[in-house]
Amino acid sequence: MNRADTLDTVNARISPRGGLDILSRDEVARLRDASAGGLHDLLRRCALAVLTSGSQSDDPRAALERYPDFDIQVLQQDRGIKLELRNAPAVAFVDGEIIRGVAEQLFSVVRDIAYTAIEVKCSGKFDLESSEGLTNAVFEILRNARVLRPNLEPNLIVCWGGHSIARDEYDYTKLVGYELGLRGLDICTGCGPGAMKGPMKGATIAHAKQRRFENRYIGITEPGIIAAESPNPIVNQLVIMPDIEKRLEAFVRLGHGIIVFPGGVGTAEEILYLLGILLHPDNAGLPFPLVFTGPKSSAAYFEQIDQFLRLTLGEDVAKRYQIIVDDPATVARRMRAGVDKVREHRLDNKDAFFFNWSLKVREEFQRPFDPTHEAMAGLNLHRDQPAHLLAADLRRAFSGIVAGNVKEEGMRRIEAGGPFEIHGDPEIMRALDKLLRAFVEQRRMKISGEYRPCYRVMA
Amino acid sequence: MNRADTLDTVNARISPRGGLDILSRDEVARLRDASAGGLHDLLRRCALAVLTSGSQSDDPRAALERYPDFDIQVLQQDRGIKLELRNAPAVAFVDGEIIRGVAEQLFSVVRDIAYTAIEVKCSGKFDLESSEGLTNAVFEILRNARVLRPNLEPNLIVCWGGHSIARDEYDYTKLVGYELGLRGLDICTGCGPGAMKGPMKGATIAHAKQRRFENRYIGITEPGIIAAESPNPIVNQLVIMPDIEKRLEAFVRLGHGIIVFPGGVGTAEEILYLLGILLHPDNAGLPFPLVFTGPKSSAAYFEQIDQFLRLTLGEDVAKRYQIIVDDPATVARRMRAGVDKVREHRLDNKDAFFFNWSLKVREEFQRPFDPTHEAMAGLNLHRDQPAHLLAADLRRAFSGIVAGNVKEEGMRRIEAGGPFEIHGDPEIMRALDKLLRAFVEQRRMKISGEYRPCYRVMA
Amino acid sequence: MNRADTLDTVNARISPRGGLDILSRDEVARLRDASAGGLHDLLRRCALAVLTSGSQSDDPRAALERYPDFDIQVLQQDRGIKLELRNAPAVAFVDGEIIRGVAEQLFSVVRDIAYTAIEVKCSGKFDLESSEGLTNAVFEILRNARVLRPNLEPNLIVCWGGHSIARDEYDYTKLVGYELGLRGLDICTGCGPGAMKGPMKGATIAHAKQRRFENRYIGITEPGIIAAESPNPIVNQLVIMPDIEKRLEAFVRLGHGIIVFPGGVGTAEEILYLLGILLHPDNAGLPFPLVFTGPKSSAAYFEQIDQFLRLTLGEDVAKRYQIIVDDPATVARRMRAGVDKVREHRLDNKDAFFFNWSLKVREEFQRPFDPTHEAMAGLNLHRDQPAHLLAADLRRAFSGIVAGNVKEEGMRRIEAGGPFEIHGDPEIMRALDKLLRAFVEQRRMKISGEYRPCYRVMA
Amino acid sequence: MNRADTLDTVNARISPRGGLDILSRDEVARLRDASAGGLHDLLRRCALAVLTSGSQSDDPRAALERYPDFDIQVLQQDRGIKLELRNAPAVAFVDGEIIRGVAEQLFSVVRDIAYTAIEVKCSGKFDLESSEGLTNAVFEILRNARVLRPNLEPNLIVCWGGHSIARDEYDYTKLVGYELGLRGLDICTGCGPGAMKGPMKGATIAHAKQRRFENRYIGITEPGIIAAESPNPIVNQLVIMPDIEKRLEAFVRLGHGIIVFPGGVGTAEEILYLLGILLHPDNAGLPFPLVFTGPKSSAAYFEQIDQFLRLTLGEDVAKRYQIIVDDPATVARRMRAGVDKVREHRLDNKDAFFFNWSLKVREEFQRPFDPTHEAMAGLNLHRDQPAHLLAADLRRAFSGIVAGNVKEEGMRRIEAGGPFEIHGDPEIMRALDKLLRAFVEQRRMKISGEYRPCYRVMA
Repeated sequence: MNRADTLDTVNARISPRGGLDILSRDEVARLRDASAGGLHDLLRRCALAVLTSGSQSDDPRAALERYPDFDIQVLQQDRGIKLELRNAPAVAFVDGEIIRGVAEQLFSVVRDIAYTAIEVKCSGKFDLESSEGLTNAVFEILRNARVLRPNLEPNLIVCWGGHSIARDEYDYTKLVGYELGLRGLDICTGCGPGAMKGPMKGATIAHAKQRRFENRYIGITEPGIIAAESPNPIVNQLVIMPDIEKRLEAFVRLGHGIIVFPGGVGTAEEILYLLGILLHPDNAGLPFPLVFTGPKSSAAYFEQIDQFLRLTLGEDVAKRYQIIVDDPATVARRMRAGVDKVREHRLDNKDAFFFNWSLKVREEFQRPFDPTHEAMAGLNLHRDQPAHLLAADLRRAFSGIVAGNVKEEGMRRIEAGGPFEIHGDPEIMRALDKLLRAFVEQRRMKISGEYRPCYRVMA
Repeated sequence: MNRADTLDTVNARISPRGGLDILSRDEVARLRDASAGGLHDLLRRCALAVLTSGSQSDDPRAALERYPDFDIQVLQQDRGIKLELRNAPAVAFVDGEIIRGVAEQLFSVVRDIAYTAIEVKCSGKFDLESSEGLTNAVFEILRNARVLRPNLEPNLIVCWGGHSIARDEYDYTKLVGYELGLRGLDICTGCGPGAMKGPMKGATIAHAKQRRFENRYIGITEPGIIAAESPNPIVNQLVIMPDIEKRLEAFVRLGHGIIVFPGGVGTAEEILYLLGILLHPDNAGLPFPLVFTGPKSSAAYFEQIDQFLRLTLGEDVAKRYQIIVDDPATVARRMRAGVDKVREHRLDNKDAFFFNWSLKVREEFQRPFDPTHEAMAGLNLHRDQPAHLLAADLRRAFSGIVAGNVKEEGMRRIEAGGPFEIHGDPEIMRALDKLLRAFVEQRRMKISGEYRPCYRVMA
Repeated sequence: MNRADTLDTVNARISPRGGLDILSRDEVARLRDASAGGLHDLLRRCALAVLTSGSQSDDPRAALERYPDFDIQVLQQDRGIKLELRNAPAVAFVDGEIIRGVAEQLFSVVRDIAYTAIEVKCSGKFDLESSEGLTNAVFEILRNARVLRPNLEPNLIVCWGGHSIARDEYDYTKLVGYELGLRGLDICTGCGPGAMKGPMKGATIAHAKQRRFENRYIGITEPGIIAAESPNPIVNQLVIMPDIEKRLEAFVRLGHGIIVFPGGVGTAEEILYLLGILLHPDNAGLPFPLVFTGPKSSAAYFEQIDQFLRLTLGEDVAKRYQIIVDDPATVARRMRAGVDKVREHRLDNKDAFFFNWSLKVREEFQRPFDPTHEAMAGLNLHRDQPAHLLAADLRRAFSGIVAGNVKEEGMRRIEAGGPFEIHGDPEIMRALDKLLRAFVEQRRMKISGEYRPCYRVMA
Repeated sequence: MNRADTLDTVNARISPRGGLDILSRDEVARLRDASAGGLHDLLRRCALAVLTSGSQSDDPRAALERYPDFDIQVLQQDRGIKLELRNAPAVAFVDGEIIRGVAEQLFSVVRDIAYTAIEVKCSGKFDLESSEGLTNAVFEILRNARVLRPNLEPNLIVCWGGHSIARDEYDYTKLVGYELGLRGLDICTGCGPGAMKGPMKGATIAHAKQRRFENRYIGITEPGIIAAESPNPIVNQLVIMPDIEKRLEAFVRLGHGIIVFPGGVGTAEEILYLLGILLHPDNAGLPFPLVFTGPKSSAAYFEQIDQFLRLTLGEDVAKRYQIIVDDPATVARRMRAGVDKVREHRLDNKDAFFFNWSLKVREEFQRPFDPTHEAMAGLNLHRDQPAHLLAADLRRAFSGIVAGNVKEEGMRRIEAGGPFEIHGDPEIMRALDKLLRAFVEQRRMKISGEYRPCYRVMA
């Protein structure tokens, strides 16, 4: 649905919408200083991702190369701020006027980057060393982004899956989104194309059919991936979390149920993250609907995942998810029923609908993991530990591979130091190797070109 | 986006929405009587078309054959009416509940069929022999359907074109709809798939991007074609006009501009209808943006149409339209600019925005044409008359061919009496023959099977 | 709250709001012709009443004398109509712009006068000789005025009572309105000051306190009294019914409960009307909350009414109403509880919430009564008939006295032919005489000056 | 309009509305702790003021004596908070349910008291020693109270004046409010009865007449006076500022124009505050519409004020205000015109509409003034200083007298230490004495009983 990209550019000044519209003079000054100083590069990269939304490339450096002269400045005015865009991609404009949804997303970028830098990291307000403090930071970023809404019934389904998937897989995600939308459910994904976009498109059509107007299409991203996974235009609430771990925590605290579509290593990371949390004894009684689903052609994929999970985390792990092949209506019905149980549980426990406070998330899943060669080599992938701790390190292993595959910093490390080495129980190592090889064969590791592994599994 | 059709059926009672909700006891009784009596068959056919919306077949008899036990009754209750559905297609329901948009369309069907039967045909309120009376009937049906809205700026683009078009043509209609939507324009089409659906889908995405919420997707159909061209689900205002001529008049009085995509004989009928009206001297100064457009692959199609129009109606006719090939953004920009001119003209003339009273439509274009063999043979396709009268009879010729191709009654006539014979100036006849042959070659005459012409052009 | 009246005048053109905004050319022409022709005087008088709203005089001729040059015209424009006002009271304008609420009421006047003249009286659509036909006319006028609303819970309380009442009585009506408003009830009255205005003012404050925003303040009037009882500015839905009988029927079919405050002969007429209907055997089981209430000072008033009703209509009549003295909160609680019963009854009987179809209203209460000397003398005020028929003629007797007191035509008749003579059972005649004398003593018969009876009771 | 107070009480739990509905667990805990600890008494007093709104007494201790068992607790629940009320005044409830507007005001009290205690005083976020820091605190409290709204045109008129005024003065404030409301202006006052309530009531009726629905009736109070001046029920945005000085700054930064009605010493304090600010050279070019107005009977009052101002602050001060006697429409027209100029000025200077950043307010007007005998005796009321500094100390003098008259702490001080002594230039002292005596004579010093001065003017 997107127009041909061109290298045409536009200069423009944009007024705030939906946030950043009531600032104190101090805040305006801080915002201007921050965006002109250390945050400027980050802001520029994220803004460009939003402005090129819809263009299809997962090379994070591509957009910057195509629009080398693009710049963004926060202008101070006594009455507030404006954004000044120079040499911005013309594709975000219609006859000289910026598309409203794109403008909203731009201000979301400024809002979240500034909030993280000024309030989360510098104000001393948060104890980022404690689990409670980290959860509080996630809460405050989401509240500041106006994503937390009182008086809404639980209805938010998080959809995970690859951004680069086969056509029939993509079409299937649309069908699932359509069935979810028919049942009055809203969608939250990680932004970008593929399984992140399909469910939103399907739900949009279904919501229109059901004459449902106040729909939420929430996109949660982070600076490291936004360039590779531009928020698609349907997203009407965009949040940029500071790092992967907070992004993952945002998903599990916001969502009332999660669907996993086929994907690659990133999807595996998400699955391990969630199951690691759900396996914690404190979360044993907590309802959390979780479905793995895809078209017939991806039945094998989920069999492999299932085998890997049972092998590494034990047979009991399988009680926490359900695999449904090629049946969008049943997927939606299960989520609807699951969400109803979540609702009852929250009411019984006087818990908020808008944030899953009761879910226990340990520090292992919250502390940012920096995938150096050393850190990767030091992961503890042995069985002599509780399943949820093993899950935590397996999650980190997949996270490191994602970084080595598509993130700027990670790719540099691999170029310089060769593949990561991963150690652990031989059986686990074999299973891991088999799974990763399957991803490669199914071409889930990279969109184009020959895949050159960034890791080596050591028995 | 539609789920697999099944022969599963559902029984249900539906409450009114958006109309038919404040009825007098008399009206309820009349409605019940009419729907149980002479109108019952019509109501059943139209309701079934709405309920099977999305299924793809242009055989008007197919749905009735697949759901032979389907029935619909209007139930009287002191507080109003309900619709009782028996053995209705399960595809219109989600977990036992009817899709809201489908329910709305069902009530639109009841509303319009009843209004036409009771108010237009039987009340004696309208002089259906005079041009003014016929226009008044069109106005009243549209007002009763709540399609006329005060205080809206002109922004309604009518899209015409084939319901059975090539994939690239369909994708192109989506792109044009997208560009129209980006510019704040609403869409009106004739319902059904193809060029009737594409622009609405494109506009839906663009409206979402522009955060535009009060969008109008108007579908105008008539009982003879609704079975073959089910209203697609995006349509949020459905009107069933009593016949082709009133449907065409509704398009030209409601729309602030018209885009014609590639199509078949039906599209040719529409073009002749509109140009016949615009060529009337009284309409000479009236702004009416009209663009013919398609992807590169359909450039030849519009060349043929253009040649035919110039040949039959004179070179001047070409001043009334513009042909744009493969440039959706330019099409949208032209419509936007054209609509702005329409707006100024209406203001200058204190004319309504919601109904084009100033357009002169002669009786030749209003009187229902019944394509019998005799009527077809009697058409005056000679040059010795004003262009707008020749256009009127050419319009009728195409209309007859449409009937012979896809309407029940017409198909029966052809089966019984052989092809229609059409007479006229040799040059016109040759041009007509050439055009029709081109349609056949381009497979625009029928969706499937070998095309067997229902007409014979006599020099 | 109204500004000092002056004789300043303003000329202005007003655009339609909330109705009359989607007219056909025919309708525009009919409206213009009617308003320029026979209806012009009626339109002028009613419009002036709306424009002088808030001025305090119950002499129907006063406004016309103060604004002798006032005129109103309906202007035709292709796109609809405008109202042209000349020498209109400046009090309806703020810095040259008409107050929006006044403009809305002006268009209500035009709408209802035109609808009655064109649709009700001339179209042949209604059988004004039959009870059903008359009820249908009431329904259609209300629907055309958009007063009938689907999907609203029953909550409309009709308040009756005098427009010229003592200060403490007026304050009491405000307190009752306040308590009704606190309980989420809407108000319908007959327009004008006194008991017609107090409940609306009280409810307005209570609705604000309860943060209730979609409030209905319905005023139902008729051409004969609008001049004497200008719609107060709070009225946000004004309806002009064609005559007293249709106005009374509108009250009882719209309202879900009725409160009667102290008043004069007009209020007595309303009480007899309602009880006459409720006494009909067909209405025996129908819930209809009815409370007579006032401050302590008016306790005697309701005792007199109560005695008169029991004497004339039998002791059973008292089961249909409840007298509550000086207790606004209890009044409101009773109405709330009564309305809840009405709701259940309508649900059980599948009756509409917005129109009380089930209530049986006989022709005796529907046929316009013209109080000539002859008609008044011919009333049957004897006991040898069913109570509901006696009530009907008692209602007419009071109606005639109202006309003789304050309506132009009635006053002329009394001036020419002397007081009306009323005949009947001696006991009833004595009771009637006593009641009327009490009204005179309590100064409920006229606002100012010595009261000279317009009737003579004959034993 | 308020119901008779009784000593009936109610126990209830109230859920949050419009704020405090998305709290973190930390915030909930802090709120509960604070409200149970040091803030509990303050919270209880303010909550009681809201719950007895409408009762008429300006003795701040009266309500506490009438409801000695009243208590309020903030309950923690995982999903947020509830308010538990015990032995609360029944007058705030309807049939057991709290009036929505009262509930909203209760949560405003909790919100502001908590915000001030936790964020303003304890977080270290604000530099309460600097002028900028104090202004920032005012801004943050108002933003947290959601009173600052982007995208609203300037239209907020602050009305000052006595809470205990004569009936004709009160009626006059209603008329002015009515004329303001007719012109689309919103109202902000200091809560309480008299001149604080009249303009809101008048505007409510006018807004209804103009069919204006999103109206703002802002009440700004502080803990020291809320008990004596309960927020009236029309107030739909209530803010409790921490002290008088921040309350005054809130008025002048929020309002786009100010009207002063007759009042007593408190009103004099407000006038001196505002003129002291406007006389600062930096504010010379700033448009700030300011009108003193009252009915004919208060003409003398404004003459006295005018004389006092000219004598103490110089003739030039009179250029900053306009005195209009007995002409509500002219007052409203002047404010409308003045606000339009404010709008232009803000646009020219790119200043916000919702907060008057450009107005220079010196620390002398911001630092809380504690009126001890010593502080009062130390005021510099001599002419040998710039007018705006003299105004600052005159403002403090009046502030001290208000405290001695009606605030708990101040009254105690006077009882213990006798009247305050005030020193200054003989001429100023004489003028001050004369003005204060006039207030006493006009009974503007106290509502009831003989007035015993709490001050002594020393020549």
